[in-house]
Amino acid sequence: MKFCMQCGAALTLLVPDGDNRPRHVCGSCGFIHYQNPKIVTGVIPEWEGRVLLCRRAIEPRQGLWTLPAGFMENGESSHEGAAREAMEEANARIDIIGLYTLFNLTHINQVYMLYRGQLVDLDFAPGEESLEVALFARDEMPWEDLAFQVVRETLNFYFQDQASGNFVLRSGTIDRNSEDQRNYRMRLLEG
Amino acid sequence: MKFCMQCGAALTLLVPDGDNRPRHVCGSCGFIHYQNPKIVTGVIPEWEGRVLLCRRAIEPRQGLWTLPAGFMENGESSHEGAAREAMEEANARIDIIGLYTLFNLTHINQVYMLYRGQLVDLDFAPGEESLEVALFARDEMPWEDLAFQVVRETLNFYFQDQASGNFVLRSGTIDRNSEDQRNYRMRLLEG
Repeated sequence: MKFCMQCGAALTLLVPDGDNRPRHVCGSCGFIHYQNPKIVTGVIPEWEGRVLLCRRAIEPRQGLWTLPAGFMENGESSHEGAAREAMEEANARIDIIGLYTLFNLTHINQVYMLYRGQLVDLDFAPGEESLEVALFARDEMPWEDLAFQVVRETLNFYFQDQASGNFVLRSGTIDRNSEDQRNYRMRLLEG
Repeated sequence: MKFCMQCGAALTLLVPDGDNRPRHVCGSCGFIHYQNPKIVTGVIPEWEGRVLLCRRAIEPRQGLWTLPAGFMENGESSHEGAAREAMEEANARIDIIGLYTLFNLTHINQVYMLYRGQLVDLDFAPGEESLEVALFARDEMPWEDLAFQVVRETLNFYFQDQASGNFVLRSGTIDRNSEDQRNYRMRLLEG
């Protein structure tokens, strides 16, 4: 970030009056460019105990399986965004049930919100960003070929709760300790 | 948004290849400037059944009461941000308990996350953005002088749940129907 979005002049990194951390401030018009975490919203699409996964056609983690999820857009709610992602990535219609996990990925400034959702019908098909989409029961899951740890942890909780019959919210942080995807630490607030 | 943050050239509003909505794209270097919702994170600070509120020293809604809350920053988790806001606005130390409400304010592209939290001690005092801070029981609450509807609804749920002894997450949307603060609609996913 080098130039002002409002006037095109050069930016300076400084702590504005009344603030307590450095921001990119325009040296000409004074506009402050805040940078804040982004929300990734997604859904666990359910059908008679099974879960719909998408095999990724794009990087990162091309070829691996994940839940429908993506960046939340302006003008939509987080649950509308979750349903939109299911439509875009799997052509799947979803009735959102409720929030299930909320994980902070502070090392990449993302907050994941994953909802439970009921598939309305079985007329799903791969979207442009998916190679294939399919339903999996717990013992059919491609556990070794999941794209993201936040998805793995959420699905672990999901099938635990499915077995106990009691779905409970989890929130917390998942921090990567190194470049190795498998080296991470999860800390939960609840439960 | 008129100029590219990366190279300072003029931006054009267009739908990039493979996308489905208009973005601000640089006509020179091609950089895409995404705009996404921001997270407001805050806390209900508890002490023996009472809740800490702050009377706002700044606009908007100067002079009215609210919970400690503000924009989540890069490099922190949403619950760390909630505790930070309690320190900044009320010099209050908080042990975060868990997520309590999550409301989408789609008309202003904000997602509110409000946590329950336990005050560690009673050594609180107004921060720079607060005129005063004080503890309130349910029947002492300044219900007519609350700054924001999302805070009012959250505190309503909070004291209902306090009475029943069972705190449950609520998530959904709060949409304003007009410029009148009191004309709004809440829709819940859970409960």
